[in-house]
Amino acid sequence: MEPGPPGSSGPVEPGPCLSGQRGADHAASAFLQSAAGTEPGRHSLAVAAVLPAGCGERMGVPTPKQFCPILERPLISYTLQALERVCWIKDIVVAVTGENMEVMKSIIQKYQHKRISLVEAGVTRHRSIFSGLKALAEDQLNSKLSKPEVVIIHDAVRPFVEEDVLFKVVTAAKEHGAAGAIRPLVSTVISPSADGCLDHSLERARHRASEMPQAFLFDVIYEAYQQCTDYDLEFGTECLQLALKYCRTKAKLVEGSPDLWKVTYKRDLYAAESIIKEIISQEICVVMDSKEDNKHVGHLLEEVLKSELNHVKVTSEALCHAGRHLQQIILDQCYNFVCVNVMTSDFQETQKLLSMLEESNLSILYPVVVVSVHFLDFKLVPPSQKMENLMQIKEFSKKVKERNILLYGLLISYPQDEQKLQESLRQGAIIIASLVKERNSGLIGQLLIA
Amino acid sequence: MEPGPPGSSGPVEPGPCLSGQRGADHAASAFLQSAAGTEPGRHSLAVAAVLPAGCGERMGVPTPKQFCPILERPLISYTLQALERVCWIKDIVVAVTGENMEVMKSIIQKYQHKRISLVEAGVTRHRSIFSGLKALAEDQLNSKLSKPEVVIIHDAVRPFVEEDVLFKVVTAAKEHGAAGAIRPLVSTVISPSADGCLDHSLERARHRASEMPQAFLFDVIYEAYQQCTDYDLEFGTECLQLALKYCRTKAKLVEGSPDLWKVTYKRDLYAAESIIKEIISQEICVVMDSKEDNKHVGHLLEEVLKSELNHVKVTSEALCHAGRHLQQIILDQCYNFVCVNVMTSDFQETQKLLSMLEESNLSILYPVVVVSVHFLDFKLVPPSQKMENLMQIKEFSKKVKERNILLYGLLISYPQDEQKLQESLRQGAIIIASLVKERNSGLIGQLLIA
Repeated sequence: MEPGPPGSSGPVEPGPCLSGQRGADHAASAFLQSAAGTEPGRHSLAVAAVLPAGCGERMGVPTPKQFCPILERPLISYTLQALERVCWIKDIVVAVTGENMEVMKSIIQKYQHKRISLVEAGVTRHRSIFSGLKALAEDQLNSKLSKPEVVIIHDAVRPFVEEDVLFKVVTAAKEHGAAGAIRPLVSTVISPSADGCLDHSLERARHRASEMPQAFLFDVIYEAYQQCTDYDLEFGTECLQLALKYCRTKAKLVEGSPDLWKVTYKRDLYAAESIIKEIISQEICVVMDSKEDNKHVGHLLEEVLKSELNHVKVTSEALCHAGRHLQQIILDQCYNFVCVNVMTSDFQETQKLLSMLEESNLSILYPVVVVSVHFLDFKLVPPSQKMENLMQIKEFSKKVKERNILLYGLLISYPQDEQKLQESLRQGAIIIASLVKERNSGLIGQLLIA
Repeated sequence: MEPGPPGSSGPVEPGPCLSGQRGADHAASAFLQSAAGTEPGRHSLAVAAVLPAGCGERMGVPTPKQFCPILERPLISYTLQALERVCWIKDIVVAVTGENMEVMKSIIQKYQHKRISLVEAGVTRHRSIFSGLKALAEDQLNSKLSKPEVVIIHDAVRPFVEEDVLFKVVTAAKEHGAAGAIRPLVSTVISPSADGCLDHSLERARHRASEMPQAFLFDVIYEAYQQCTDYDLEFGTECLQLALKYCRTKAKLVEGSPDLWKVTYKRDLYAAESIIKEIISQEICVVMDSKEDNKHVGHLLEEVLKSELNHVKVTSEALCHAGRHLQQIILDQCYNFVCVNVMTSDFQETQKLLSMLEESNLSILYPVVVVSVHFLDFKLVPPSQKMENLMQIKEFSKKVKERNILLYGLLISYPQDEQKLQESLRQGAIIIASLVKERNSGLIGQLLIA
């Protein structure tokens, strides 16, 4: 009965340029990279993106929704990340209001976003998009932007866009001049009469919701915006309609996945946070001092984690060998570590791991969970020693929290009895799963007991 | 920047018949109760509700979405609770498929739902609604159902419906014959051509999404269903349209709040869980052995909780005086308790509270959080004593988990230094806030340290 992970609606993977890792995306990447080439002289399909990020009023919160934090990072940064990791998008133009310009610059700096240009937003969505298009059209001497062949238009508040659908709308736009993602309607659409009563209802099966991303031949959409009226710019909502009306370009419609949805209400922020937490909780790496010994209690814990946590990939790595394998796991963006300190109550291993994590930039985008596990035979080790440790982990946890690392301690009882050991390992796995799932910063530095 | 509580989009309050507690709902209740009366002979507005709860295929999970668990309770139970607490709805008819009949019966029994009748669902939504209406129309001798004047139709997967909007659609239906809740469109609606291209887009401002609840004069909607074709029953999606087509009844459209939304995708389950957690986390009661002493450290903790937790109502109550005030707080559905055990390391106070909670039925609908707080001067009390306690609280927590009570322990350091005491109280408040917010069952029985 538990809702599993998003399955087919696979959401954003973290980090830049993961395109080579999946089938469809790999094809997309290969096609567009070879088309775009690396030699500027050759024929290439130049693709840019425009993101209107003006103001949203629907959320009922004072902060514009694209700046609302999810795991302490603004929503728009997730959307930028989703576009950025697509190697064949050359430029990303974001239209923000003057008052949010500095906030936006600091977001780009803090989260190290690349290929972003900022332009000033207009007072409506269409005016903001037009500003973005103008910046791409003008081949100014000092501008690092150049006119693309195809331009993607996307929303700042749709963070879960996949490379696959971007590829589909771009290739359809290349062929048809315009293309946009659509979804089935969730509710029936009706038309009210002037007195607030039902005039008629629309047949649900014959209509679709128009979503984002959309893509256009640049000349088509730029022409449409140049020709369209002030009324269009003020009250229009649909770019595909402008291309149809002013350039007679009938957009190709592309079926999108459910995760193209637009973060509109507060409940959508909750949903986005849960989805993001789920995405970064799909792998746990068990780190131990020696990999070779199969009877190592760390391996026992690894086995129990594997059997207790479905949907989670559990790997293990040694801290020794100058940690080269571990470096790779960090590069591959695993956000959860269980560091095993065997039969000892000091934090030596955990400290080594924390140093490696601090040196990497892994925790810039997402909070990283580290569970420092200590196996102790409660009958042999005096509890007072544990209390000293506790104080130590509190201080460590405060320090690494500043680097977005969430550190928790976990004592696992190590009785001689085999069955009791299995039970305490199982308890430990449940606690680790909870910590990884919730990423609760209020409980950092606690020493939990299994 | 934190997303606050749902504000104007106030969601379901737990428990039956809370109608008297809010302005609009009070008016609604007064009107309909006086209309409905308690004397069966007098003129009354008899209202019933029909809930189609057949099958949903969109979620991508094997369990039909109305049976998906949120905090371990099936979604449909929250919707039933929302209708049940509206005193003037006399009967609630739920249409479920034969294969889910037993599951539904056990849900009604486990969560003690009242005024529910079950009928067998049809293969489409319209057929299920028709089944529900038939059950209300047939004044059979053995049936406890009688024909209502107005019937509400609602979805099993819209748990956050308010009494206010139910009142509005019922009164509008009484006047106009039919009425339904609507919402602004989030996306532009388009009509595709046969070749999968854009035919035209609809002006967003001139259309609305038709949501639930809807209400009808019973005779109008029953007549419409009796007349409508098999095609309507198979492929139709809109009850308002049936009333228009077959009874020339133009439905009144009523603006609904954002929380009328339909739980459709997995992300909606995540959103619903977060909203429900937020609703039941809005009040914390600090329980202590003596209320009179203003210098009681429990009161200090209460003050810090008040200043640290915005949006949360913090009250305090004594366990003594046979706990009469505390009984009232439990009756008023507070789901979070902080039980203060001063300068002691036993659980006497907490055990008294747990017994009271177990005797009440409070935890039937929602998991109740109890934090057992112990103030200890770490320099004076030997740590080994705490370890014994720890083992104790683990056992307690397992036992009360069976009754849906989540028990955690919290040691707060009680140093002589005033400033240090404030700091440890603040740490304690942060931990309490985390536990209340997350309701994490994987961490029950842990002894946390502030």
